Formats: sequence, C-alpha cells, structure tokens
Amino acid sequence: MALIRSVFQEELDGVSQSLVDLTNMVSDSIHKATQALISADLKLAEEVITFDERVDYYQHDLDSRIIDIIARQQPVATDLRALVTALRMSADLERMGDLAHHVAKVARLRHPNSAVPNELHATFTQMGSVAEKIARKVGTVIETRNTLLALEVEKDDDEMDSLHREVIGALTSSSWNKGVDSAIDLTLLGRYYERYADHAVSVARRVYFLVTGEYSPA
Amino acid sequence: MALIRSVFQEELDGVSQSLVDLTNMVSDSIHKATQALISADLKLAEEVITFDERVDYYQHDLDSRIIDIIARQQPVATDLRALVTALRMSADLERMGDLAHHVAKVARLRHPNSAVPNELHATFTQMGSVAEKIARKVGTVIETRNTLLALEVEKDDDEMDSLHREVIGALTSSSWNKGVDSAIDLTLLGRYYERYADHAVSVARRVYFLVTGEYSPA
Repeated sequence: MALIRSVFQEELDGVSQSLVDLTNMVSDSIHKATQALISADLKLAEEVITFDERVDYYQHDLDSRIIDIIARQQPVATDLRALVTALRMSADLERMGDLAHHVAKVARLRHPNSAVPNELHATFTQMGSVAEKIARKVGTVIETRNTLLALEVEKDDDEMDSLHREVIGALTSSSWNKGVDSAIDLTLLGRYYERYADHAVSVARRVYFLVTGEYSPA
Repeated sequence: MALIRSVFQEELDGVSQSLVDLTNMVSDSIHKATQALISADLKLAEEVITFDERVDYYQHDLDSRIIDIIARQQPVATDLRALVTALRMSADLERMGDLAHHVAKVARLRHPNSAVPNELHATFTQMGSVAEKIARKVGTVIETRNTLLALEVEKDDDEMDSLHREVIGALTSSSWNKGVDSAIDLTLLGRYYERYADHAVSVARRVYFLVTGEYSPA
C-alpha cells in the first residue's frame, strides 16, 4: 500500500512538474513574441509560431497522462480534484501559448515593419514583461502552492489591465494618426496580452482554491 | 450490477442533457446580445449580462456533478473519457456564454447609439444568426452524437470566418469614415463572434472524437 501510494505521489508530482514546464514554455514564447513584435524580427516570430506546436503536443501528452492516472489510480476527493484541476490548468496554459503564437503572427504579418508604432513600443515592451513575469510566477505558484504569491498574480493582472487601457487611450486620442489598420492590429494585440494574463490569473486562482478550499478574495 | 449500471447510465445521460441545456442557454444569449447590439436595446443587453451569471452557475454545478460521478463510479476507459470530455465541453460552452456577455456589454457601453454602423447591420445580424445556429447544432450533436452534423459545424465556422473578414474588409476600406473608436469596437465584436464559433467547433470536434476515436478531418 505504501508503495502504491508512493508511485501515485510520484505521478502527481510529475503532473505538477509538467505544468511548471508548460509555464516556462509559454513564458519564453510571450517573451520572444514581444521581441519579434517590437523589432519586427521575422526569424523570432517564426520560431514562436513553430514552437507552439511543441506546446500543444506537450499539453496533449500531459492530459493523456492525467486521464490515465485517474483511470488507474481511481483517486477520490482531494486527489481527484487536484487531477481535474491540473487538466483545467493545462488548458489555460495551452491557451497562453496560443496567444503568444497570435502575437507572433501579427509580427510576421507586418514584417518588415513593426506592427507597433514607436510611441507604443515602451507600453508593449512592458506588456510583454508583465506577461512573462506573470507566467513565471504562476509556475512558482504551482510548484510551491504559495497562496500569497497566487494573490500577487491578481495585482500583476491589474498592471496588465492598466497597460491595456494605455493602448486603447493612445488609439482613441485625438493625436492618433496611424490609421485604422494599425488600430485593428493594436486592438487585437492588446486583447491577446490581456487574455494571456487572464489565463494566468485563472491558473493562480485554481491553485488557491485547491490549497484553501476557498475562492481567492480578488 | 444491472441496477448500478443503469443508475450510472442515467447519470451520464443527465450530464449530456445538461450540456444540451447549456447550448440552448448560450444560443439564446448570443441571439439576444446581437439584437441588443443592432437595435441598441439597453434592456435586452442588461438581460444577457445578468443571465450570464446563471450560465456560469449552471456550468459550475454541472462540473461538480461530473467530478462527483467520477469519484463515486470510478469509471475507466470510454466512460471516463466521456466524462472528462464533458468537463471540457462545459468549459467551451461557458466561454461562449462569456462572449455573448461581452457583445452585450459593448451594446450597453454605446447605448443609446448602436455600436454597429448601419452599413454593417446586415453582416452582424448574419454573424448573430450563424452563432445561434452553430450553438443549436452543437446541442443536437451532443444529443444525437451525429458525426455528419459535427462535420457540418466546421462549414458553419467557415461562414463565420468569411463574415468576420467582411467586417475587417469594411474597416480597412478607403471608404471607412466612422473613426478609430468604432473600428476598435467592431474589431473586438468581430473577434467575439469568431471565438464563439471556434468554441462551438471545439465542442463538435470533441463529440466527433468520442464517437469515432479519430480527430475530425477538417
């Protein structure tokens, strides 16, 4: 029995580790996608686009493992909830990969120009940093189950929302002179970063709930 | 044993029925949200916004039931996969409800004006119809497990993509004279309808895979 429990525990730890791996993969992706976007770097954009297939594959494989663990170990209560939650977190993380991929596709589409005009470079660089930071933090939250850190993610998301409002503010200001095509790009890009952070928040909230049995207060 | 199996079967049928209920709820929501958007109907917009809480609650309750069934019945193989897939489908459907809610919020924000200029009323009305049709069809796919119908959903999604391109085409044409604010609204609205249809496709593909064991060819 002790042995079975320990194999099971190892399997659960393996699932956690794979989720952390996914957070690192999507952190790298959004970092590179942002660089590709600002510097109109086609090679880097292509790299993110290709890499997304690996994220999808990794997530798919993780999900199969989780379902297999449920089938073999027939966990109940807490363990079952942890495994179901892992399935949901992997879906959030996969989606974050998709959104980095979307950013890279806009970069590729507008190459050799940057889809982001100079006056918004700082804002988008900042959105990229916040996105990367939030994804890394969520990795630590999964690893350590630190609920205080999980709550911090909500604040990072506020920072992203405020940057997002900055973008919309620039587009709707009377001095905006980059035309509608650019406004469409920037609206979508703003949305991608915002959704990226939303999914990170969702992962952090799921960990918070698993640990405390309560919804996070934010 | 026969009795246990039959209780379990009833529970599985109940899960299916709840998923169908969710498709009906989100079909109604996108239908009403589109009407609210085109006619700048504040009351209807508020109705969709409030109703979204019921969708969330319904989905939340369904998910708890599914996890409870897994814990009690300890299903393996096909039944476990069906239940895990049901969790994923409920997440897709809940998200479709969110997107209808987002559409309604744009309608509310621009009230007493319509967020959609007259020349795009026909296109957005059509997007609303396709969204409603696709969600209803997905309900039938869940109910009947008809794989041909599941494949049809891919075609409906192509129709949505083409309408979405129509919107972007109008925004980027030289005759566009509604300004950037309106372009931002319409870019986001186009994205909401497109994502709504994407999630419907995702549900149809999940049913296809459950029934055939293969990914849908589309």
